[in-house]
Amino acid sequence: MRLVTYRAHIEAPARLGALYGDEVVDVQRLAASQATDLPASMLELIDLGPGGLRTLRRLLEAAGDTLPPGCAVPASNVQLLAPIPRPRKNIFGIGLNYVEHVAESSRTLDTAKDLPRQPVIFSKPPTTVIGPGEPIRHDAGITQQMDWEVELAAVIGRRASRVREDDALAHVFGYSVMIDISARDCRRAGQWIYSKGQDSYGPFGPCIVTADEIPDPQCLDLWLTVNGQIKQKSNTRHMLFKVNQLVADISAGITLEPGDIIATGTPEGVGAGRTPQEWLKPGDVVVACVEGIGQIRHPVVAV
Amino acid sequence: MRLVTYRAHIEAPARLGALYGDEVVDVQRLAASQATDLPASMLELIDLGPGGLRTLRRLLEAAGDTLPPGCAVPASNVQLLAPIPRPRKNIFGIGLNYVEHVAESSRTLDTAKDLPRQPVIFSKPPTTVIGPGEPIRHDAGITQQMDWEVELAAVIGRRASRVREDDALAHVFGYSVMIDISARDCRRAGQWIYSKGQDSYGPFGPCIVTADEIPDPQCLDLWLTVNGQIKQKSNTRHMLFKVNQLVADISAGITLEPGDIIATGTPEGVGAGRTPQEWLKPGDVVVACVEGIGQIRHPVVAV
Repeated sequence: MRLVTYRAHIEAPARLGALYGDEVVDVQRLAASQATDLPASMLELIDLGPGGLRTLRRLLEAAGDTLPPGCAVPASNVQLLAPIPRPRKNIFGIGLNYVEHVAESSRTLDTAKDLPRQPVIFSKPPTTVIGPGEPIRHDAGITQQMDWEVELAAVIGRRASRVREDDALAHVFGYSVMIDISARDCRRAGQWIYSKGQDSYGPFGPCIVTADEIPDPQCLDLWLTVNGQIKQKSNTRHMLFKVNQLVADISAGITLEPGDIIATGTPEGVGAGRTPQEWLKPGDVVVACVEGIGQIRHPVVAV
Repeated sequence: MRLVTYRAHIEAPARLGALYGDEVVDVQRLAASQATDLPASMLELIDLGPGGLRTLRRLLEAAGDTLPPGCAVPASNVQLLAPIPRPRKNIFGIGLNYVEHVAESSRTLDTAKDLPRQPVIFSKPPTTVIGPGEPIRHDAGITQQMDWEVELAAVIGRRASRVREDDALAHVFGYSVMIDISARDCRRAGQWIYSKGQDSYGPFGPCIVTADEIPDPQCLDLWLTVNGQIKQKSNTRHMLFKVNQLVADISAGITLEPGDIIATGTPEGVGAGRTPQEWLKPGDVVVACVEGIGQIRHPVVAV
């Protein structure tokens, strides 16, 4: 299933939906029409565990081509928000997780040339999250080196503490797309949170594809364009630490909880690694896509 | 006021209290006894803004020495939890923020000798938080170098975006104590979240002292003992970046929200900086104190 958080119009509250052909089915209303209870937000659905998804799947199958009246709106009429508009903790980001990106970073940033022996973890506050189409805020008083990074995002569905790599994917609820916007000149004594954690630095969406539809997250093309020009193009098979390894590794010391988000790292082709270096500036438009999930498009605006 | 989150007994739900002499006054029950509404959790009280604190103060003053029946329990009978048991995002930690600690770190860790020109920010997930008395989990499979760091914690009361240093303290709700437990051998490519972000690595409490009672947060003694031996002893006047500067600096790019916590850095005397180096091990007991706030005591246990 392809799950979204949407607004029927600009003043409407955020609600949980499922993409269904060209329509967005309101999950709570569909359930209510069948005298069943399902929640109105993504985090609450995730909290229900596998039972929630089973119920929703059953309702959609039962509806077939004839959705009950009042349950669906044309997808083109709604505003999509970030699938989880407000995460309950910082997003886990993974640095230096594609082989070629390690090389370009060591040439142009202050990172090591050797491949990391363990995942390099940082975080992005919930206030970084913006939904599809929302502007990336460019504050020229803070950065002259705003960069792009397209990433596959994994959303945790089940509490994970000290899980084994072989079991780790069973803890993933689904997958989405995130751009890890990074102000390269805002790194401080090596710590990346200020560089990657500013307001609007986490474009996220357009949907969460449930894990059953992506049995292998390590074979997905992903790409990013700036003003229509391709800048990054790779495949998740080139990840140094795979999604199951990331979940297992983090969970060894840090308990992962339902709704947690892991941005799994970016491939080569970032602005810092180009000759000459390229940076995002107001007026630019960034589009990021992961195969089988979808794409998000964000303008860069001056603030 | 000295605000706590407490449980009347081991099975009871967490509730918001105010220390009042030797008693803990239940905030919601006190308000209800006067036909007023106040919430049962710290975050909800913080969300009410200054009006919530004004109401609570008025109720306590009106009660004087005769609290309405059923509103208070002896402090010695309750279990204190972390004042905010579950923060809504990662805690902001500040590294290298006391002059002498910068020196000891550069001698023994991989940090620079020069004083940072800007605050060095990292984060600790909400799952690090433990309340007074709860065990610090020592996993010998992950770390052989568990270290202590006593810190003054500032709790944000009012949304702060691009605030000036002169206005910054008006955005602070109150102050508390945090130990920034750090596994020195878990730093990865310089990033500190795994080192400082593991489960139980954020002992926090025993209360939040509201900001009106600490007009100057830069004149507080703070100390830490391990097994009764003093390891750290300093004063917040030695902070490199003061609380108001930290709030202003972070808020320049990252909006601070009510309930956010900033652990403001630790003075010299950490285990990594000693000759020979000293590390926490199961069986140790750590006590940390900030003047005017209180102390927290935590055993280290093997897991």
